[in-house]
Amino acid sequence: MSRVAILGATGYTGTELFRLLHDHPGAEVVFVSSETYAGNKLSDIHPQFREQEDLILSRMAAEEIPTEVDLVFCALPHGESSGAVSALLEKGFRVIDLSADFRLKEAGLYREWYELEHPEPALLGEAVYGLPELNRGAVSTARLIANPGCYPTSIILALAPLAKGQLVKPGSLIIDAKSGVSGAGRTPKQPFHFPDCTENFKAYRVACHQHTPEIEQELSMLAGSEVKVTFTPHLVPMVRGILSTIYLELETGKPEEELRAIYSYFYGECPFVRVLEAANFPETRLVRGSNFIDIALKMDRRTGRLVVISALDNLVKGAAGQAVQNMNIMLGLPEDTGLGQLPI
Amino acid sequence: MSRVAILGATGYTGTELFRLLHDHPGAEVVFVSSETYAGNKLSDIHPQFREQEDLILSRMAAEEIPTEVDLVFCALPHGESSGAVSALLEKGFRVIDLSADFRLKEAGLYREWYELEHPEPALLGEAVYGLPELNRGAVSTARLIANPGCYPTSIILALAPLAKGQLVKPGSLIIDAKSGVSGAGRTPKQPFHFPDCTENFKAYRVACHQHTPEIEQELSMLAGSEVKVTFTPHLVPMVRGILSTIYLELETGKPEEELRAIYSYFYGECPFVRVLEAANFPETRLVRGSNFIDIALKMDRRTGRLVVISALDNLVKGAAGQAVQNMNIMLGLPEDTGLGQLPI
Amino acid sequence: MSRVAILGATGYTGTELFRLLHDHPGAEVVFVSSETYAGNKLSDIHPQFREQEDLILSRMAAEEIPTEVDLVFCALPHGESSGAVSALLEKGFRVIDLSADFRLKEAGLYREWYELEHPEPALLGEAVYGLPELNRGAVSTARLIANPGCYPTSIILALAPLAKGQLVKPGSLIIDAKSGVSGAGRTPKQPFHFPDCTENFKAYRVACHQHTPEIEQELSMLAGSEVKVTFTPHLVPMVRGILSTIYLELETGKPEEELRAIYSYFYGECPFVRVLEAANFPETRLVRGSNFIDIALKMDRRTGRLVVISALDNLVKGAAGQAVQNMNIMLGLPEDTGLGQLPI
Amino acid sequence: MSRVAILGATGYTGTELFRLLHDHPGAEVVFVSSETYAGNKLSDIHPQFREQEDLILSRMAAEEIPTEVDLVFCALPHGESSGAVSALLEKGFRVIDLSADFRLKEAGLYREWYELEHPEPALLGEAVYGLPELNRGAVSTARLIANPGCYPTSIILALAPLAKGQLVKPGSLIIDAKSGVSGAGRTPKQPFHFPDCTENFKAYRVACHQHTPEIEQELSMLAGSEVKVTFTPHLVPMVRGILSTIYLELETGKPEEELRAIYSYFYGECPFVRVLEAANFPETRLVRGSNFIDIALKMDRRTGRLVVISALDNLVKGAAGQAVQNMNIMLGLPEDTGLGQLPI
Repeated sequence: MSRVAILGATGYTGTELFRLLHDHPGAEVVFVSSETYAGNKLSDIHPQFREQEDLILSRMAAEEIPTEVDLVFCALPHGESSGAVSALLEKGFRVIDLSADFRLKEAGLYREWYELEHPEPALLGEAVYGLPELNRGAVSTARLIANPGCYPTSIILALAPLAKGQLVKPGSLIIDAKSGVSGAGRTPKQPFHFPDCTENFKAYRVACHQHTPEIEQELSMLAGSEVKVTFTPHLVPMVRGILSTIYLELETGKPEEELRAIYSYFYGECPFVRVLEAANFPETRLVRGSNFIDIALKMDRRTGRLVVISALDNLVKGAAGQAVQNMNIMLGLPEDTGLGQLPI
Repeated sequence: MSRVAILGATGYTGTELFRLLHDHPGAEVVFVSSETYAGNKLSDIHPQFREQEDLILSRMAAEEIPTEVDLVFCALPHGESSGAVSALLEKGFRVIDLSADFRLKEAGLYREWYELEHPEPALLGEAVYGLPELNRGAVSTARLIANPGCYPTSIILALAPLAKGQLVKPGSLIIDAKSGVSGAGRTPKQPFHFPDCTENFKAYRVACHQHTPEIEQELSMLAGSEVKVTFTPHLVPMVRGILSTIYLELETGKPEEELRAIYSYFYGECPFVRVLEAANFPETRLVRGSNFIDIALKMDRRTGRLVVISALDNLVKGAAGQAVQNMNIMLGLPEDTGLGQLPI
Repeated sequence: MSRVAILGATGYTGTELFRLLHDHPGAEVVFVSSETYAGNKLSDIHPQFREQEDLILSRMAAEEIPTEVDLVFCALPHGESSGAVSALLEKGFRVIDLSADFRLKEAGLYREWYELEHPEPALLGEAVYGLPELNRGAVSTARLIANPGCYPTSIILALAPLAKGQLVKPGSLIIDAKSGVSGAGRTPKQPFHFPDCTENFKAYRVACHQHTPEIEQELSMLAGSEVKVTFTPHLVPMVRGILSTIYLELETGKPEEELRAIYSYFYGECPFVRVLEAANFPETRLVRGSNFIDIALKMDRRTGRLVVISALDNLVKGAAGQAVQNMNIMLGLPEDTGLGQLPI
Repeated sequence: MSRVAILGATGYTGTELFRLLHDHPGAEVVFVSSETYAGNKLSDIHPQFREQEDLILSRMAAEEIPTEVDLVFCALPHGESSGAVSALLEKGFRVIDLSADFRLKEAGLYREWYELEHPEPALLGEAVYGLPELNRGAVSTARLIANPGCYPTSIILALAPLAKGQLVKPGSLIIDAKSGVSGAGRTPKQPFHFPDCTENFKAYRVACHQHTPEIEQELSMLAGSEVKVTFTPHLVPMVRGILSTIYLELETGKPEEELRAIYSYFYGECPFVRVLEAANFPETRLVRGSNFIDIALKMDRRTGRLVVISALDNLVKGAAGQAVQNMNIMLGLPEDTGLGQLPI
């Protein structure tokens, strides 16, 4: 039984990590921290955990973490996370960082899109982008995992087989993505106030969302050449789920069935990727609460364009579930340990 | 065409007032204020009003209000409102106050339930409780209207015919009320953050909600003797609407049909009260966006208890619509002027 | 005061027509029909209309409609509507048809997309496509109006200035549209059953939705050359609203501000089209319950693609409100008569 | 590993059973049936189960169930269930019946409230009411379990310590209960059509809901004398959850703290009952997806009335979770086996 710590345990991803690890047969949460709520029991802040093994929230300080901890999940806001991660690595901990701080390889891109000077650029080279379906080997031996963003996970997995095969016509990629509200975090703000948010649909950060360079970096790496995308995120009045609708032109025409066969082959060993049969399409409820990502392909015969649609739960495969999947690989456990929950 | 002002125009009730008055044939909004957003256009804060007659939000100061204004709606938070109202009255304005500050007749009760010393106790005697169905005459000549609370409106109107007729057995009243989230106001807070609020149902302020003494005061006045109630409010994951389910024992048994006849008689001249036929029950959607209150009666034959159920839109009949209804009466207009919208 | 009839008055668009016409100063509903509920009062089926002027639902037969009726709204399902319309015209009534039956000019397209032989192809030439912003003149004298579809309205108005100016690069149009559930009609079906529908987001009829040819027909007409689009509709867990996110390449680069100026000019006389200022984007709640369509433009500088986003209420500007707007023009009334409601 | 069958596997409770049993370490689903969908794979009807161990839905016939099955869950509609159960018992299977057919001890009550002649009255005496917190011993050896209704579970557990202690004043019980929409089942109907159901709140079957006699029967048994209640169910626009607000007078005054101590003692060995500390109240989200029931007590000092509030997930503790809990006891497993999921 490995021992793990969660820093930033009271936000939505920290809480989801706690929920998933509660039933995990190979790992036990022994330390939780929260700047805001230090000193309280976790169940005072999240009463759904009442009468369960009840941890006290510590302040976030590397030296307070018991040395027997095998792995630390860092679920702090971007900007704050990098300093904490650096201290953790120095203490000898392996770290899975759920913030955006170590996802971009270039400090310059980070500065441009997050409007912050990167506090720990020296670590950028070492961090492994924790998308297990693509980087399983590197994940297994990594000291530092940059756990991917929710939108990028839904998009990169939806496109990897095509990108890797250089099948996408350069410049043709348009991504229209839609997310539930939990993606915006747990801090109350006007746009997420129930009466302003329910019964409403809107786009936001049109053509300027900070996940854009993360998507482009990974797709470029896969394709072996620079990829640029138009990316529009939208807010859906629901709690969990991301659905990405992606439009592209193929370099050379291929029948839909052949593309589907390529996807099935590509993800053959991946327990959480479900490539849907023809005429089936993803719905966010069909993956809710689970670590699955569902992917469908549809050729628009009239225009020759390919439409790829993916769905995942942003708090699970888009954050905490993927982090547990990475942890499993780092600890030498089967990749799907403790992640067998069916969608609810 | 009368000229009116709205103080606190950017909260939910202020905004709803603006919406309702926009189409009103006898009144025109000429002044709007907001402490937080003074200097902005109202449509900068509420873009649904774009390209409409566009007012600039002023600071809230009695001396800034044009003297030709005929009536001022005060939609400020309780505690803040009383000082403003006092200044307005001094300037000679007639005022409809939508806060709780002038609803209770006794300053002691205000202190007990709102945990504030009342700043203007001298005005409590003059304020008219603005429930037009019960106090039409006093409203018409009032200088200061205390616009009733949303829960109290739904409950007092549901019980007035029984209370007035001394038909309710003392001590038997239990009120189980349920409100949409707009009742909690526009300021973002954790319990109203979309992911914490949707797909959730709960009771709150159990047996200690500040609307309790307002309900008891008005029912006692109607009954001519002291009335005490058990009152439990609940939060429903929807924006608008209050449904109150009220349980009571009758002093003397009466058939359901006879009670219904009494209600129909009592509300015969009231355009916004709909007494439902037998076997029909209120639903909040059936009054949404309108100034109606629907009331149903059902005798539980097995226990001899009467169940009274009422529904209204908390922002309309429970706040802004009722305020406009009071304004109409004060200005000598037909009571339903500008309030003819059907439920949406 | 003109007299109008509504055939199919109990569906969502028929009901919305009744709601909008209730307060209309120039028209009065004197006849309502429903095949399913004939013989009932409208308020038995839609109790929100209780205690209002109460019409009995008739069977749908042209001969039952009083001859003094000036105009008939036909809100029947496609396929059923054309026969009814033909009979109405024969009786001498002017008709606004809210079904899809008279929107496509070619019977062959109708057969292909609706999988029905068109019952009244002879009338296709005469029907005027009722988008007042584009066809005001033809609407004013028409005998038969084909009221546009909800998606097409949101898309055609979002693109008309560009299409008319031949500014769109052929083949570049991608439309990612999202609709609330009322667009699917009032008949209960599994995908719209509350527990299956709330907290869910999905695409449907990917690259094969029946509104595609309607969009292409009107854009082609405006552009003067054949336009083809990729169109993906999605279902949003809310009742009202359509938001369309449209991607395109321009024939020749133009700054965003210049394009915005073109739109403002193009829609200068249109009371219901609001072209948003830079950095403002539509939200469905900002048009809810109103006849507005909000349109925003955003140039994705990194890819050179233009993103156009529009929002409307599918039951108002996307159906019943637009029908009333057409009626106003046909009756010689100001176009916005009875349509002044602000968003709720 | 025990083998179990689910009859009626495609409704909401059948599906929830499948979800919960999927991860159960001591039981395996080997047979599923559905009248409507026989011949299909379960995952064709519920695509969230794609790529999991994939069972074909059989027709519901006792002889098709493999003889090595240890226990059958019967999730058929009431009226249909009793015949099936009788056939299963004859074949020698142990049965947990999730319908209402075997909950009432008197066939006369069944006739009165369900308006059906009971098809198998001879089995009523044998059926054990499967509320493990009260009947653990009888459950362990039972051949036939009547799994309790969702409302009754939330109410009986909220009152059992008081009823058992004869602390409730006769005739004083009023139950105001609120349920999510999944309680109404999976068949689409008008009141549960998304646009009619969301943003709406209403009471239904006021003073005549068929769960009334089940509540009274069990409370009477506990109290040792006849108990009658006023019971009003309401529909909340959310999928899962029941919250019951219960009002009563005590036979003899007791401080709230003492009552809380009694509850804690009474449920000391019950892993799924959480008695909340003073000033804490249940919320449906805090039990969602879990088998917990949360219970709070609050004395209304002003009226001397006690308010008891409970919350559970109607599909878990109110149906499928409770059925698994019963199965565990019948199979000699720890009561909470496979039911450790934290609320989501």
